[in-house]
Amino acid sequence: MNSQMLTEPTLLLDKNKCLANINLMVEKAASNNVVFRPHFKTHQSHEIGRWFRDAGVKRIAVSSMKMAAYFADDGWGDITVAFPVNVHEKERINTLAEKITLNLLVVSPENIDWLAREVKHNINLFIEVDTGQNRTGVLPGDTKSIDSILSQLARHSHFKFSGFLSHGGHSYKITGDRSKIISTLKEGIGMMFPLKEKYRHEYPELIVSPGDTPGCSASDSFEWADEIRPGNFVFYDYGQYEIGSCSLDAIAVAMACPVVSVSPEKNEVVVHGGAVHFSKDYLTLPDGKPSYGKVVALTERGWNTEETGMYVKSLSQEHGVIHVEKEKSVKIKIGDWLGILPIHSCLTADVMKSYQTLEGDRISMMR
Amino acid sequence: MNSQMLTEPTLLLDKNKCLANINLMVEKAASNNVVFRPHFKTHQSHEIGRWFRDAGVKRIAVSSMKMAAYFADDGWGDITVAFPVNVHEKERINTLAEKITLNLLVVSPENIDWLAREVKHNINLFIEVDTGQNRTGVLPGDTKSIDSILSQLARHSHFKFSGFLSHGGHSYKITGDRSKIISTLKEGIGMMFPLKEKYRHEYPELIVSPGDTPGCSASDSFEWADEIRPGNFVFYDYGQYEIGSCSLDAIAVAMACPVVSVSPEKNEVVVHGGAVHFSKDYLTLPDGKPSYGKVVALTERGWNTEETGMYVKSLSQEHGVIHVEKEKSVKIKIGDWLGILPIHSCLTADVMKSYQTLEGDRISMMR
Repeated sequence: MNSQMLTEPTLLLDKNKCLANINLMVEKAASNNVVFRPHFKTHQSHEIGRWFRDAGVKRIAVSSMKMAAYFADDGWGDITVAFPVNVHEKERINTLAEKITLNLLVVSPENIDWLAREVKHNINLFIEVDTGQNRTGVLPGDTKSIDSILSQLARHSHFKFSGFLSHGGHSYKITGDRSKIISTLKEGIGMMFPLKEKYRHEYPELIVSPGDTPGCSASDSFEWADEIRPGNFVFYDYGQYEIGSCSLDAIAVAMACPVVSVSPEKNEVVVHGGAVHFSKDYLTLPDGKPSYGKVVALTERGWNTEETGMYVKSLSQEHGVIHVEKEKSVKIKIGDWLGILPIHSCLTADVMKSYQTLEGDRISMMR
Repeated sequence: MNSQMLTEPTLLLDKNKCLANINLMVEKAASNNVVFRPHFKTHQSHEIGRWFRDAGVKRIAVSSMKMAAYFADDGWGDITVAFPVNVHEKERINTLAEKITLNLLVVSPENIDWLAREVKHNINLFIEVDTGQNRTGVLPGDTKSIDSILSQLARHSHFKFSGFLSHGGHSYKITGDRSKIISTLKEGIGMMFPLKEKYRHEYPELIVSPGDTPGCSASDSFEWADEIRPGNFVFYDYGQYEIGSCSLDAIAVAMACPVVSVSPEKNEVVVHGGAVHFSKDYLTLPDGKPSYGKVVALTERGWNTEETGMYVKSLSQEHGVIHVEKEKSVKIKIGDWLGILPIHSCLTADVMKSYQTLEGDRISMMR
């Protein structure tokens, strides 16, 4: 990493680590004979999307119709919008459904009424199942709602029922317990599989699609699943490391931030790097204090993950306040560059809107 | 507010409320005979900047060199970068210093060494004073550092010492205690005024520049200050309302979010509107739970601020989960639009990157 290229907070991307993360998941899906449909909400970038394509990926998930349109523009032809359908986006839905295989998510019979009124082209529909995250989706036991959705859906020949989809986001609340992450994934799949058994005679092609990064990272098998949809694994982050999804060395992004103020008497340095660079997700340290990012040392080849004793203790709009251990704070000078592993790379990437590879190439994102 | 114009999460701007906020602060500064240098980091928009210009404002503050360049491009000729100077941005500094009155912030004698080496044009320098926020700046009693900065500064004829500047951001931790907000502002000014007295003989033009939104909103007088620099007041937000800076009716922005899922059994609805729309600042409710935004009813003329009993209880990347009172949740339908007053409008605007006025005009921002 040539820090002479840097002038302001910059989201560094280690392409080799990123490619390794992609290839590992591609291989894991292949060896389990499940479809790998990576979620592109994390990187939101045409160029990084092409790295997946180069690895053989043909189907993707996104989190909004806007993002679906962005990736369709780069040639992706099979996209799942893994978010309950927004009934106001009929134009985007019709435009996309006409040109690609578009898979949408329904959570209620009302969704079908509206789709039938507004969408003229072929679409595939998943029913979202709430397997424990407690956010959106039909409860697995609520076959009354499922039957109601399916009976309405059956009236429209341009709608195809694709199966059951869940996001087991409650795995994000686990800390460092790999077996618990795996059992959370398996339980989630286990709630959808009986639904598959129940409806497969009528819908022989229906699939079960789980897929959160912790579960797909920790587990080596995906029994009873037909497809996985992890997203964050493309970069990982310090939050995923704490959950137990990845090693520190697998984290593929770090923010380079210039030191603008040094206060040895407070064991603090302040960097240019605030909420407009990181967003504001944090994790809680064992002493109850929040950490908005883990400080690493930048090196010629990127960064090294040795313990620095430094973390981001608070963020305001542009300032990041770093806790520094006493003996280290006197060595840091104004103008030094620090690397910071973000707590939640999806949100950090979203606010930064671009990456810089260690080779100095700028990678753009959706705007 | 014609919700037929809306298709996705949209940051609505009530221009009349915004203009009223601007005019009130313009008049308050004028009646106190202090320079009004609004901080433009909140709106980050050429067009909204022009509303200030139309109200007679000639000098502004920003939080980064990038933002300074953006506003200089729209004709602003006197800009303070109210952030400790980043020694890697010599190109932007030299480019701007050549064409406008550029005021920078120093926190250490090291800053002067570097500026002397790298900056060839006239610049004005403020010393940042830490009046209690405990983030950056020289402590008011640390006249040794101040003398050291000034003696170095004096060696360079193209550097002019402008005075003492502080951000009393600790006022953001106050809740609903107007007299405490005012005393926090006055204490901050009171820490800088003795410095002015001490150095005014050598630097007769030096000024004292405080200015946070709570202090400048709550106080009717700014005795001993020469300039004020509030920023957030242009929109305010639900956080400022809780602090005690503004009425609910003064809040000039609200996010319009479509309902995508309704769960009466959980007293919840879910909207499209997540961390990528709001960022993730929150306030803590009396029961200890976080609120990421206050729900209001959208109306034909914008929104009304009557109590709805609804607030955003959690945010993920694209989902906002709304707590709804029992009797109301059954009335809300998929496809309804809810208004949400953000907790921190600066960060919400920063992630949204544009506004839509109630008349349907799109206002762009810095990218």
